[in-house]
Order: sequence, then structure tokens, then C-alpha cells
Amino acid sequence: MNSEQTNLQAALFGLGLDRAAPAPLHQQLTEALRQMILSGRAAPGTRLPASRQLARDLSVSRQTTLTALDQLLAEGYLETRPGAGTYVARDLPHLAPPPAPAPIATPTAPIPARPFHPGAPDMAQFPHAVWARHLDRAWRRPAPELLALPDPFGWPPLRAAIAAHLAAWRGLDRPGAQVMITSGATETFELLARALFRPGDSVLVESPGYGPMRSALTRAGLAITRMAVDDDGAILPDGARARGVIVTPSRHYPMGMTLPLARRLALIDWARRTNAWVIEDDYDSEFRYTGAPLPPLAALDAERVIYVGSFSKLLSPALRLGYAVLPQALLAPLRAALAETGPRASLIPQPALASFMESGEFATHLRRMRRLYGQRQAVLRAALARALPDHLIAAPDPAGMHLLCRPGPALEQVPDTEIAAIARDAGITLRALSAYWPDGDGPQGLVLGYAGFEPEALEAAVLRLADVLKARYP
Amino acid sequence: MNSEQTNLQAALFGLGLDRAAPAPLHQQLTEALRQMILSGRAAPGTRLPASRQLARDLSVSRQTTLTALDQLLAEGYLETRPGAGTYVARDLPHLAPPPAPAPIATPTAPIPARPFHPGAPDMAQFPHAVWARHLDRAWRRPAPELLALPDPFGWPPLRAAIAAHLAAWRGLDRPGAQVMITSGATETFELLARALFRPGDSVLVESPGYGPMRSALTRAGLAITRMAVDDDGAILPDGARARGVIVTPSRHYPMGMTLPLARRLALIDWARRTNAWVIEDDYDSEFRYTGAPLPPLAALDAERVIYVGSFSKLLSPALRLGYAVLPQALLAPLRAALAETGPRASLIPQPALASFMESGEFATHLRRMRRLYGQRQAVLRAALARALPDHLIAAPDPAGMHLLCRPGPALEQVPDTEIAAIARDAGITLRALSAYWPDGDGPQGLVLGYAGFEPEALEAAVLRLADVLKARYP
Repeated sequence: MNSEQTNLQAALFGLGLDRAAPAPLHQQLTEALRQMILSGRAAPGTRLPASRQLARDLSVSRQTTLTALDQLLAEGYLETRPGAGTYVARDLPHLAPPPAPAPIATPTAPIPARPFHPGAPDMAQFPHAVWARHLDRAWRRPAPELLALPDPFGWPPLRAAIAAHLAAWRGLDRPGAQVMITSGATETFELLARALFRPGDSVLVESPGYGPMRSALTRAGLAITRMAVDDDGAILPDGARARGVIVTPSRHYPMGMTLPLARRLALIDWARRTNAWVIEDDYDSEFRYTGAPLPPLAALDAERVIYVGSFSKLLSPALRLGYAVLPQALLAPLRAALAETGPRASLIPQPALASFMESGEFATHLRRMRRLYGQRQAVLRAALARALPDHLIAAPDPAGMHLLCRPGPALEQVPDTEIAAIARDAGITLRALSAYWPDGDGPQGLVLGYAGFEPEALEAAVLRLADVLKARYP
Repeated sequence: MNSEQTNLQAALFGLGLDRAAPAPLHQQLTEALRQMILSGRAAPGTRLPASRQLARDLSVSRQTTLTALDQLLAEGYLETRPGAGTYVARDLPHLAPPPAPAPIATPTAPIPARPFHPGAPDMAQFPHAVWARHLDRAWRRPAPELLALPDPFGWPPLRAAIAAHLAAWRGLDRPGAQVMITSGATETFELLARALFRPGDSVLVESPGYGPMRSALTRAGLAITRMAVDDDGAILPDGARARGVIVTPSRHYPMGMTLPLARRLALIDWARRTNAWVIEDDYDSEFRYTGAPLPPLAALDAERVIYVGSFSKLLSPALRLGYAVLPQALLAPLRAALAETGPRASLIPQPALASFMESGEFATHLRRMRRLYGQRQAVLRAALARALPDHLIAAPDPAGMHLLCRPGPALEQVPDTEIAAIARDAGITLRALSAYWPDGDGPQGLVLGYAGFEPEALEAAVLRLADVLKARYP
């Protein structure tokens, strides 16, 4: 027995196998031997004690040692030589001991949204029992088509239900075949960026605008040209040269104005003349409290405009379902773009959402939430007018899920980012309007989401906000 | 009345409103007027007949004409001048008539997979009733945390259940906090590509290998260096310089071999010396029929290896759920990468899958499918040996969901792509092995998926295949 063998035997003898541990003894022994080999404590070529000897040394059954040795033979840590016993494999490269394990991270528990987090619907109002019934019905005895190779564009009955919804609510008349389901607006923008444009192509976007959309375009290598926005919405620059334009005509994000008809027609006309694509992001038009909505741009030109929608704000962000309504000519390019990444939208919620829409329960829910959100906007405006009349000025907004407030005389010298920071310290979420501009140099204002919160929570948050703001800026 | 007015009145008079149509008359009138204005048939500045006159001309109620005119006023198509009636808006740019509508596309109905489509589990064996019960339980009265702002890394109990599964089945011991849920392996690769590397960085991939993974890396701007593969798996080139490597050590895709321990240790050693990341794609190791599996690479180094898994093959591709087990140091970079795109994995299946795993039903299902798939592989091999002994030679495979067949003497001169084309014409899916190589210049072979098909379907497909192959190559 050479010194390597002696050392190994000593080390094995000192192994602390734990009979009380949940892992069986043979597994503990396997792991201990593996670590000795990996760390170099058991050197390549060292002969192991016979299994009987090992069992005696460790006071375990021979079966335990045989199982451990077999496993390590199978894994290649050990090798046998005919009639000569078991050895640590010779051709193993030496592996330095792994770094000390880092402290264990604890999982982040989901936290409830706090006022005035914008854009999230009130999930407590979600019709959970109805929804669970649709899920159960769809999956208990699923239709054979649900078990087939899924259409990458999504579950066909859901696509038809979305088409029917858009015809009824938005005056957009298109067959379900032109609806593509995605996991949300950001994936839609990524797919469109790859299917419609080539890296380096120029695309016009509104400034301010929706950040995740801009970064999806940038990731696809597109050159972004920013369009200024005035009180009517995006201004198409004279002689604009671009392969496409992305707009929020129904309700500018985050400013809230509606693009007037003349600008809509000019946009379509420009797109036709220059052979450019128009991408219309229609993210919360269903929540309109007063006045008649304009039909979407897509209703003006079926072959030039791509309509982008999502269920995140209308129903629940947990669904991760969005969609695009595509011109005929784009069906094949988008199928190709989807084939490259594979679909991301889960099929699990799709048949349930389809029957939820077909049954009329979706429309009922939207009407109910529209009434509720309209009331909440009024509550928030009244609370602001009472508690902070010289600090935050909010005009009534005919639609949407958030209010845009301008700083009043008491806050005129205070940057909106500073106001947002003070609110954050008091546990209140305010978004600074200036931060929606590329370099943070936009006009001053604050975005207050109200849709997701009970009237009492809105009023309490306004009072808390009034306390901290008035303490600093009376 | 000028000639424009006369023309407009004549056109209006000739409008065919359809009382039997589902759309109400005021809506038909709105749309007809809108189209006349958009097409230029009603010129800017033209005065419209008074609403009473219009109602008489069209034999509709005055309320109908008032509703239509109000809508078009709101939309900006018409304008009023005080005391002077209603006009087509003056400042509308002219819009050429839209192109003739393309023929309506019909939706693609999902089609059942046909033999020998690889990689798909047998969805008829999915425990639908059990699954529907878990969905129903999770969502009928959802836990408050399910309604909060979701953790972008996924539902914490699911992350803990995945960690427990990996400890039991794969010998990988990590806390749930290090598990990140995604919508599948392709999204995982996209996130890793953005979080771990910079555009232009070099990454080693196996050749042949998994196409969607390669294209995710290419889209992220990474430079791909291909590693050759021999009978043991990927060969790390001497002095390889790269920022990362992506491997399938448990079961090479699509060849099926297991990377031996010496190569594993050399890979880890290289990664430590060059400060590179190792991404381990472990896509179907749970389906191993004989022999003990090697523990994953990630068990050898917790800080250097990213373990990538998915439920698409284990359970159902409809879930669109995958995951990565991350080193501690990568938790923050991956959270940042996810914040940029937002999460894509739907929350709807996550609590149901968590309780399905916690209850032990997932493990039971895996064991049951493992036995079933093992039987199906035996059935397919026996059928091939009976019907096509000189055409397709398949060695037994200790694991997986597909068989790799080598062309026998009767097919030695026939390109595998040609064999796949003949099969396709007979309604049978064969994948040519050579097509997994970058330029299609790999060795000859055919990939036959068997997991998703009943034994009878496998046998019938082999007989059909034998008919068409023997007719051409006896």
C-alpha cells in the first residue's frame, strides 16, 4: 500500500456518514468520494479499498459501498482493471476546489402594487370564479385540436373572438385569420421589428413614448427617429424618410391626447407615398368615459396599418397575452419571424379567454371596469383638488387609467423627478413626466395611475402625499 | 347649390342602406359618408344637406342622420360653421382609394403531429382532469400574492418546486431563489445572450446542435464558433478562446451521446481558467431507460454553469414554460435583462404546475411516461428491424424521445434529405441528420421521434415507410 492509498483510506475512515440525514447512506458515500476525487484529495490512479473492507471501515452494509462504487464507475470517476480492483480514474483533469458558496438568496415575494402605480388593472375585480370555470371547462376534456401541434399564431377561436371584439368595440372589421396572438406588446414589437424592417432601417417613434417599445426596436438594430408631440399628438416631420412609424393615435402614451383626423390621414398618405408601415399601438382605448372614440387608424387602411393590442391592461397582466391585426401581405413574413423564435404565448389561458369573450362576459367586465375606473378618476381628481390644489393640477381625462398632473404654483420650481423621489420615500409611486423623454428633458408633470386602487386607497394616498409635499413645499 | 353639392346630394340619394343588414342604419350611413369623404367623392368644403333633408332623401328617421353626422363631426370628417350648416372638413388631406382588398385568408386549423415528428410528448397521456383541478384550485379563489405585481422570475412556489424536482431527479441542489422561469428554452437563451455577453463576443456551440438556440445567439449579435462532435460528444478545441460555451452534456442533441466525465471536468477547468460561462441545455434527461445518468455539469460548479430546462418535452409544449438555474452572481444581470423585455411566461399555468409538482403527481407522470416511451422505442426498433432491415439501422438508445437511424446497405447511395422527401410525400415526418449541420454537410442519418405516438401508429407508419422506400430502393 503506497502513501496515496494510505491517505485515501484514512480519509475514507474519517468520513462522517450521517444516519439521521434524509439522503441515503450510499448517496452520501457517492458524494463524499466524488468530492475527494474532484478536489484532488484522492489522486488519479489511487487504488480504492475493496468494497468489503470499505464497508467494514465505514460500518455500513456491503450493498451500500457496492452501490456507491457502481455509480462512480458509471460516471467515470472510478475505473476497474481486470482482476486488480478499483482505481480513481487516471485520465481525469485536476479540478481546483470550487469557490466558497455565496450566501443563499431568498426569493422575492410578489408585492402588491401601491398607489399610484400606473397601467395595472384592479385584479381584485377580476371575475376569478368565472375565469376558473372557463379554464376548467377548456382543459378537463380538451378539444382534440388543443392537443395537436399548436398554430404559432394562436388558438383559432381566440383569434376569431378578438376579431369580433374589435369589430364591436373599435369599429375594426377583420377576420380572425389576420390576428396573431403573442405574449404581449413587447413581443409583438420585437416580431414586427424583425419581420418588417432590416437592421439599420429608420423608424419614427413618438417622443415621449413607450420605453419598452423603443428598446425592442433598438435591440433589433433599427435606427430610431423621434417625432415631437404637441397638444394634438405626434407631428410627422416634413419630408420624413423612414421605413415605418409607430404611433398611439387613440390616446397618446403618456400624454393622453387623441390624434385628429387630419393628422391621421396625412400619416396614411405619407405611408402610402413612401411605402412605409404604420404600427398603431392601441393599449387602453376600451376605457373611454366621455365622447365617441375615433376608429383606429387600421380602419382607414387595411393593407398599410398594423394594429397592436394587449389584454394586460384590459383584463390581467398575468395572462401575458397580446395580439396584432396584420395586413394580408404580412401574414407570411410574421409566420416566418415567429418560426425563428417559436411562440411564447401560453396555450393554457387561450381557450378559456376565447369562451370568456364568446359568452359576452368579457364585454360585461369591460363595461363594469369602465364605469368603475371613471368613478375612480373622479375620486382622485376631487381628492387632489381638496388636498393639493396649489401643488398638482389635473384636467379631467376622457379616457385611460392614469391622470397626468401639472405642477401647481407651490411646486413650480421643483423638478418632477424630485417630487417622485419624495413620494417614493413615503411609499407612494409617482412617475415623473420628464423621464418619458429620451434625455429626461421633457416638460414637468406627474403620472398618477388610479385604475388599480379602491377609492379609499386613492384618497388615503393623496392625504399621505399632501403631508410630505406640504411639509417641504407649503 | 354648386355642382359639388349637387353631386354629393345625388350620391347620397343613391346610397343603398340595407335595412336587413346586422349593422344599424346610422352606422351604415356613417361608414358610407366616411368613405365618400376619404375617397374624394365628397370634396373638402362641400356643404351637406340639412339633417331633415338627408333623412327624407334616405327614408330614415332624423335621429339616424343626426347620429351619423354627430359621429363624423366628432371624428373630424365634418365641421360646422355657426349658423351656416355642416361641411366636409376643409383641412383634410386627400387620401387615395385603398387598394382592392386581398382575398380573405382562412385560419390554419391545428393539425395533429404525424409520425415520426420528434420532441413532442404524447398529449393524449397528459393527466387533463388532474391538471384542470389544479388550475381551478389555483384561480377560483387566488392567493393574494397571485394578484400582486408578479415577480419577473416567476411564481415563487413553482421555482421552489422546480428546485426540489432537480434535487430529486438530477442531483442538482439549489434554492428556488436561483430558478428563473421563462416561456421556454429559446427565451432563456435570448436572456442569457443579452445578460452574459456583449455583441461580438465569441461563444462555442456544438455542431450539429439545436438550431433555435444558435439563431437566438445570432440575433443577439454573438459570434458563433462551432465545436466538432465525436462519438463522445463535443470536443473543446485546444486553446479555445470564447466568452462562453453551450453544451448538451446529458444527451447530445440530436446524436444522443453522453459527455464523459473527463471532458466535463476539462470543460469546467477551461471555463474557470478563461473566466467563461458554461450553459448546460438539459432538455430530456428525465427520460432515461437504462443506466445511471451522470449528474448535470451544474452540480460540478454552482458559480460557473447555467442549467437550462423546459417543460415542453417533459409535460406539454402548450404550457410555454421553461427555466434556468442561475449562479448567484447572475441573479442581478438576469433581472436586468428581463426588466428590459418584461416577462413572457404566463402566470396562469404557474400555480397549477407548482401544486401538480408538490403533490407528487408530476413525478408519477414522468415515471409513467418514461416506462411508456421506453416501450415505444422498443416497438419502433422491432418494427424497423422487421420491415426495413436493409434500409434503416437503429441502435438501442438508453434515453430520449427519438431514435437516430443510420442508412443501411439499400440506402447507402441515397442522400438522407432525399429519403426525408420521399417519406414526406407519404405523410411521414423524417428529419435528415445532415440538415442539423450548418451547411447540411453532416453525416447521413434519419431522426425518428417515437414518444408522441401509440405503438400501433408507429408500426403502421413503419409499414407505410417500407412500402414507399422499397418501391424506390428495393
